[in-house]
Amino acid sequence: MTTTTRSAPDASDALAPETATAVKALTQEVLQSFDQAPARLRTLLQSLVGHLHTFVLDNDLTEAEWRYAIDFLTRAGHITSDTRQEFILLSDTLGVSSLLDLLTNSRTPESTPSAVLGPFYVEGPPNLPEGTDISGGHLDGDPVLANITVSDLQSRPIPDAVVDVWQANQDGFYDVQLPDLEGPVLRGRLRTDTKGRLSFWTILPAPYPIPDDGPVGQMLSAVGRHPMRAPHVHFMIAAPGKHTLVTQLFVEGGDYLDSDTVFGVKQAITVPFPVQNDPPPNGHVAPWRRLDFTFHLADQT
Amino acid sequence: MTTTTRSAPDASDALAPETATAVKALTQEVLQSFDQAPARLRTLLQSLVGHLHTFVLDNDLTEAEWRYAIDFLTRAGHITSDTRQEFILLSDTLGVSSLLDLLTNSRTPESTPSAVLGPFYVEGPPNLPEGTDISGGHLDGDPVLANITVSDLQSRPIPDAVVDVWQANQDGFYDVQLPDLEGPVLRGRLRTDTKGRLSFWTILPAPYPIPDDGPVGQMLSAVGRHPMRAPHVHFMIAAPGKHTLVTQLFVEGGDYLDSDTVFGVKQAITVPFPVQNDPPPNGHVAPWRRLDFTFHLADQT
Repeated sequence: MTTTTRSAPDASDALAPETATAVKALTQEVLQSFDQAPARLRTLLQSLVGHLHTFVLDNDLTEAEWRYAIDFLTRAGHITSDTRQEFILLSDTLGVSSLLDLLTNSRTPESTPSAVLGPFYVEGPPNLPEGTDISGGHLDGDPVLANITVSDLQSRPIPDAVVDVWQANQDGFYDVQLPDLEGPVLRGRLRTDTKGRLSFWTILPAPYPIPDDGPVGQMLSAVGRHPMRAPHVHFMIAAPGKHTLVTQLFVEGGDYLDSDTVFGVKQAITVPFPVQNDPPPNGHVAPWRRLDFTFHLADQT
Repeated sequence: MTTTTRSAPDASDALAPETATAVKALTQEVLQSFDQAPARLRTLLQSLVGHLHTFVLDNDLTEAEWRYAIDFLTRAGHITSDTRQEFILLSDTLGVSSLLDLLTNSRTPESTPSAVLGPFYVEGPPNLPEGTDISGGHLDGDPVLANITVSDLQSRPIPDAVVDVWQANQDGFYDVQLPDLEGPVLRGRLRTDTKGRLSFWTILPAPYPIPDDGPVGQMLSAVGRHPMRAPHVHFMIAAPGKHTLVTQLFVEGGDYLDSDTVFGVKQAITVPFPVQNDPPPNGHVAPWRRLDFTFHLADQT
């Protein structure tokens, strides 16, 4: 980034009086241009304009820096596709997604904490039968038998809840990042039975880097941050009359729990995936693990 | 845009204590993640994070609104090409480009005021001889004979200054917006003679809408703003040892001078294009006009 050296931390203090007057008039003019907008849109855009103008002024932003920002956004847009979302990665790595998630959580404080959706969710995952191995049974990694219960805030089971699950493979890739792969892998939709339960086999999730070959990866590299996510499995759980829960279960003792690059780790959803000493059922190989977890869904408001 | 009704103007006041604590901790963690960045980058990214988080909190942004923003940026990226720059249009229509321009101007207060570059500049325009008609002589619109002088702040002529000029046609289109057009039209590069002068023929610029078939156009429409720019001719003037001047000359008496959608009009560069009573020279048709203007360039600092 080309920069011009600036001395004042708040450049608006250092503006010549005629420039300060012109700046104030300009910002007012821009704010007023949104006066006729629908209420919520007006609020958001006037707030955005205020923040953008303050950012430019306080930092005495140079044209070279502005051009860099335009180019950054352009490159982010061009690398974004049906299976790659650089703007979500940007939101994630700037902590905006996790902040939104905290606000979302605060609306349903009694439910299982939510976590960010992330960029790898695919609408309409394949319907899978109870007990499926979503790894297809041939991927590297410790086999995990997941026993999931979905209940309401009073611990009453929720039957026929729709549970979407997705995770990365042992090398840290989601299926949509592997163009040679045929069909969904480590991804699917199951439904709870009459007791609010379902089970599936998978593999222990590994830590992995977020896609870092684009502008967001360059940003992380430029500021000396690693691109790693702590190991986790994604869940999206929906049931009639319930608030849809988007969350992740993190592997207790896993790497990067303290420096997850998207600031997504929460204590309450960091859970054990204990190694089992019994012989693995159904021809699965040892060492194998279990994941037992009950999700609590809040009523829709 | 789907919105949830919010009552508090500043939602952070209304957060439950545990949420407020978690939010504060998250923002601190994100800010600290940039502590090791190079100084200017750290300043800009920490300032950006502060503004983004405040924006989300103060407006109690919903996930639906966040998704709309991600989608807006994605669509802006996908419509952006070598000849269409939606992020510059966004910067322009939110007044950010004009604000930057005011800051740029404040560094060279004695020179001719600058104006925004706009999205239609093309690097390396064709070199044209003195007296060229950049309209090719066959476009609708009043012919204009432009007599341009380039001087320094002491009004001493600057010979061999490189003067790039570009403008829209009578219908409001730049050449790069017309895929069927062969080669540059209403666009070119000239050089001043030993007296700092050059002249060319063109046509009177017309008001025109910025490209409004993309997300920025949808934003303008949603808030009840028109997409029109006041009529103008773009100039970029470079000379050894001088600060390169990027500016526009606006047509005195033209439409939209008071509501230019990119907030770009300045009094000092709004100039007459007077109709001439003499018969037009060189076979040009009546009514014809003149544009006489002297640009003053500041020394490079």
